[in-house]
Amino acid sequence: MLDLFARGSPTQLSGAAQRPHVALLPCRGPTPFRPHRFTVAARVSTAATDAPPAPAPKQQKQKQGGGGGGGGGGKAAEAAVTPRSEDFSKWYLDVVARAELADYGPVRGTMVIRPYGYAIWEAVQSHLDCRFKELGVQNAYFPQLIPYSFIAKEAEHVEGFAPELALVTKGGGKDLEEPLVVRPTSETIINHMFAQWIQSYRDLPMRLNQWCNVHRWEMRTRPFVRTLEFLWQEGHTAHATAEEAEEEARRMIDVYADFATTVAAMPVVPGRKSRIESFAGANVTYTIEAMMGDRRALQAGTSHNLGTNFARAFGTQYLDASSQRQPVHQSSWGVSTRLIGGVIMTHGDDKGLRLPPRLAPIQVVIIPIVKKEEDRGPVGQAADALAAAAKAAGIRVKIDADERQTPGWKYNHWEMRGVPLRVEVGPKDVASGTCVTARRDMPGKEGKQFGVPMSPPAFTAHLHSLLDDIQTALTAQAAAFRDDNIVDVRSYEELKEAIAAGKWARGGWAASDDDERRVKEETQATLRCFPFQQPPGPHSCIMTGQPAAEVAIFAKSY
Amino acid sequence: MLDLFARGSPTQLSGAAQRPHVALLPCRGPTPFRPHRFTVAARVSTAATDAPPAPAPKQQKQKQGGGGGGGGGGKAAEAAVTPRSEDFSKWYLDVVARAELADYGPVRGTMVIRPYGYAIWEAVQSHLDCRFKELGVQNAYFPQLIPYSFIAKEAEHVEGFAPELALVTKGGGKDLEEPLVVRPTSETIINHMFAQWIQSYRDLPMRLNQWCNVHRWEMRTRPFVRTLEFLWQEGHTAHATAEEAEEEARRMIDVYADFATTVAAMPVVPGRKSRIESFAGANVTYTIEAMMGDRRALQAGTSHNLGTNFARAFGTQYLDASSQRQPVHQSSWGVSTRLIGGVIMTHGDDKGLRLPPRLAPIQVVIIPIVKKEEDRGPVGQAADALAAAAKAAGIRVKIDADERQTPGWKYNHWEMRGVPLRVEVGPKDVASGTCVTARRDMPGKEGKQFGVPMSPPAFTAHLHSLLDDIQTALTAQAAAFRDDNIVDVRSYEELKEAIAAGKWARGGWAASDDDERRVKEETQATLRCFPFQQPPGPHSCIMTGQPAAEVAIFAKSY
Repeated sequence: MLDLFARGSPTQLSGAAQRPHVALLPCRGPTPFRPHRFTVAARVSTAATDAPPAPAPKQQKQKQGGGGGGGGGGKAAEAAVTPRSEDFSKWYLDVVARAELADYGPVRGTMVIRPYGYAIWEAVQSHLDCRFKELGVQNAYFPQLIPYSFIAKEAEHVEGFAPELALVTKGGGKDLEEPLVVRPTSETIINHMFAQWIQSYRDLPMRLNQWCNVHRWEMRTRPFVRTLEFLWQEGHTAHATAEEAEEEARRMIDVYADFATTVAAMPVVPGRKSRIESFAGANVTYTIEAMMGDRRALQAGTSHNLGTNFARAFGTQYLDASSQRQPVHQSSWGVSTRLIGGVIMTHGDDKGLRLPPRLAPIQVVIIPIVKKEEDRGPVGQAADALAAAAKAAGIRVKIDADERQTPGWKYNHWEMRGVPLRVEVGPKDVASGTCVTARRDMPGKEGKQFGVPMSPPAFTAHLHSLLDDIQTALTAQAAAFRDDNIVDVRSYEELKEAIAAGKWARGGWAASDDDERRVKEETQATLRCFPFQQPPGPHSCIMTGQPAAEVAIFAKSY
Repeated sequence: MLDLFARGSPTQLSGAAQRPHVALLPCRGPTPFRPHRFTVAARVSTAATDAPPAPAPKQQKQKQGGGGGGGGGGKAAEAAVTPRSEDFSKWYLDVVARAELADYGPVRGTMVIRPYGYAIWEAVQSHLDCRFKELGVQNAYFPQLIPYSFIAKEAEHVEGFAPELALVTKGGGKDLEEPLVVRPTSETIINHMFAQWIQSYRDLPMRLNQWCNVHRWEMRTRPFVRTLEFLWQEGHTAHATAEEAEEEARRMIDVYADFATTVAAMPVVPGRKSRIESFAGANVTYTIEAMMGDRRALQAGTSHNLGTNFARAFGTQYLDASSQRQPVHQSSWGVSTRLIGGVIMTHGDDKGLRLPPRLAPIQVVIIPIVKKEEDRGPVGQAADALAAAAKAAGIRVKIDADERQTPGWKYNHWEMRGVPLRVEVGPKDVASGTCVTARRDMPGKEGKQFGVPMSPPAFTAHLHSLLDDIQTALTAQAAAFRDDNIVDVRSYEELKEAIAAGKWARGGWAASDDDERRVKEETQATLRCFPFQQPPGPHSCIMTGQPAAEVAIFAKSY
């Protein structure tokens, strides 16, 4: 039944080959697609031919736990990760290390993003940058070092950020007169420039974005999720009216929600933050909240309506049509390398990472299976032909022809790295003109298809179709998991039970900031958001019993 | 004679339309092309339809010098730049400001890269990143904050960089035990990681690159050319043999030379730095030296053979095939936003910037010419159709339909921004089915072509052909200027004369480091490089008269 692609019936595929494949589209709209390139492709396949035999078992594996008795040419798998169900936190750190996504930097709390992790970030950048530009946002770059006095200008802002700042106090061998802040975010310096650039309403809206690094001196860090330095994009806009600024803040959270759901396969809950949880300096903060595999919430992106707070602090004014000076209305919005942590914790399993095809640096890995030396030539040629066909069809493909490792070792290796689809090709396949595919998201035989024809149109249509299916399946799994773990509560008692059971609690909320703080203190859960999508009312406040206009979601979070 | 495209003979264009157009290729090889997008395109054309009449002359222009009497709907041009011949330095700063490439940051020596300037950087990134990946280099990201002790580990390195460092001494409200260096370059922290990642020869070569910001506390700054913070890429590689490291360093300087020449139209002189001028910590530094419009040299990119200097300092070792520990051999290489300064100073003229088509964010600007209201519809439609055809042909195109400005004002505006090609379309053109093109690199009528057919294949073939011609012409002009201003000298006296005349002096050099310092002291010229391309010998040293194996180039530089 799984053998849809038995030889002799490839014609049924021609239709499928024509339709657009979501897994390959980084960006809607007419902008040409640059598939990101195979930054991770070079080493394994070339090393095999150049290198003499290994002098000793590979050192790196000994470091990684040493289980399985060395690797050079052996059949043992790479060291496995801690089971997810046993210790989620340890499992996460294991996956980050084993999949070579990141490593620890020498300064506590800093992280090195390794090539495979960085390739995922490049995919995020490529998708989002394309969407921002379609929306008319322009990229720019503002200095990283900000005079301390700037941070102090907006009262809430300095209160929120002062405890987390890194300060440069010496430059060029001298003590500086005023310490410089290593950018934690750029509202202040951007307003300093906007105030010079914006004169009249004709200069509005001004909508800029920058891709950069930021520093926040965090005490409890975790790779990708919370690090002393991280990479992000920060959009900053100025508008003539409050309505436009609000519209922009909402538009961008929608962009993030759509990206998270359709590209990262993370079906987030978009909504509004409570006053307590909002950005320091914002009137309103919007958020996308994602449910991780341990059911804790991850704030995966935010968008702020800044009102005129920074504009008043920095004198960012424009002349309106009747020549009156008015403060501009502003928004800012950002997502960061934290998203990568979200992808790992949403989709990963006991075999390691699982990447949604639209975000995967390698979508398909081809493993030639060679037992006899005489088969190496024909099998290698067949693998090359399949890779060429896949590449020509816009699929990010890699051949792992490393002669030092067994096929089984490679299966584990690429499963650990979350490659969505594997193609196996051996001498029997070459003889029959077919190959085998195996889905990362379906373990064992269930995810395998045999007799997949090698002819390029049928082969690539099969890959496209499977990649689409995997994208859809990962999204659906995550959505079902999320929905299964949100509990509607009617009282504080029920909230406490839900939180104690590790779930998200959703209920009417019209209580005070102090009540919100009390929930946090007593349950460790915070008000994640007032979701945009509200269940039908009327609602009453779980804390006070009074009528509530909205429901809120409470959860423990990262 | 210029009217190659008279109606009735468009057939002659079909051949041209088939050939590949260098102006549109960011990258050789099979990797798909993502034209960078029109980050600068959104504002002018939309503002025209949305905005009510201006309340006052545009403020920004008053700031920019006020010459010409305001802009709102007027015919006056934007304020002109200081003539290049009058004051090159002031001309440069004027172009940077008027073309809105960059602005000054609040901290002395820092720079804001504005959207139009940043779009040029994105073009540089897009071209180079593609080439690096084709060569198998992988992107990664290393922390910006480096323990001070790391910098001190390599003796020459600390001597070279210590005076320029920015230091973080406070974090999270506390004094740090050890000051952290804000990355001036990353050899040290990368070796710290390489030492952990590299175990055996099987892990080699390791070839990584990062795109990031760096800080060097410079005293005399100039936008793009020398700033306290700048953006760059830094490649770092580790190899098993000295030969491979040398090969890599040479390969990458070749990549830079090819990029500078074929994309940025800067015909650089690649060569080897003298010992004095080499990177602090390198055995050998290679450079590409470009001649600016004032004939001063600009070091536009460097590549270093680091030997085992950092490997020994950081213990970056590998087990060779006979299980012996060996230090790795390394290279590093980088180009920065300084390249943008080089492009400005190589190609700019009294009308402002001139951008080579392969690097231009906007390659073609279309100006609809409307005098009577009844013409607006048909002319606008024709302009839209031309833009659509150009875009479909892969050309980066923009329509400037701003109703507030005259065509003449727009001509100046886009000439200032260096757009290589302008298309004018008015009612008569619409009636005759033709339009007019004007080259940025050829002033006045010489650069104009009338009667260019509007039919998409003929129109786009015409654009492609002109963009190719402009790319070639800018390169040829710069090469001729360079060659006219390099003087072969046979004695120190002749060198002094050449330098006093503002030229580059080339002659045999086999003298001491002290002699080299003396030249600098007495003439302000430095030894730019021993060019790879050596004139036929034998040579004798201009300083000592002794036989010299090579000629060197001396010049004043940025």
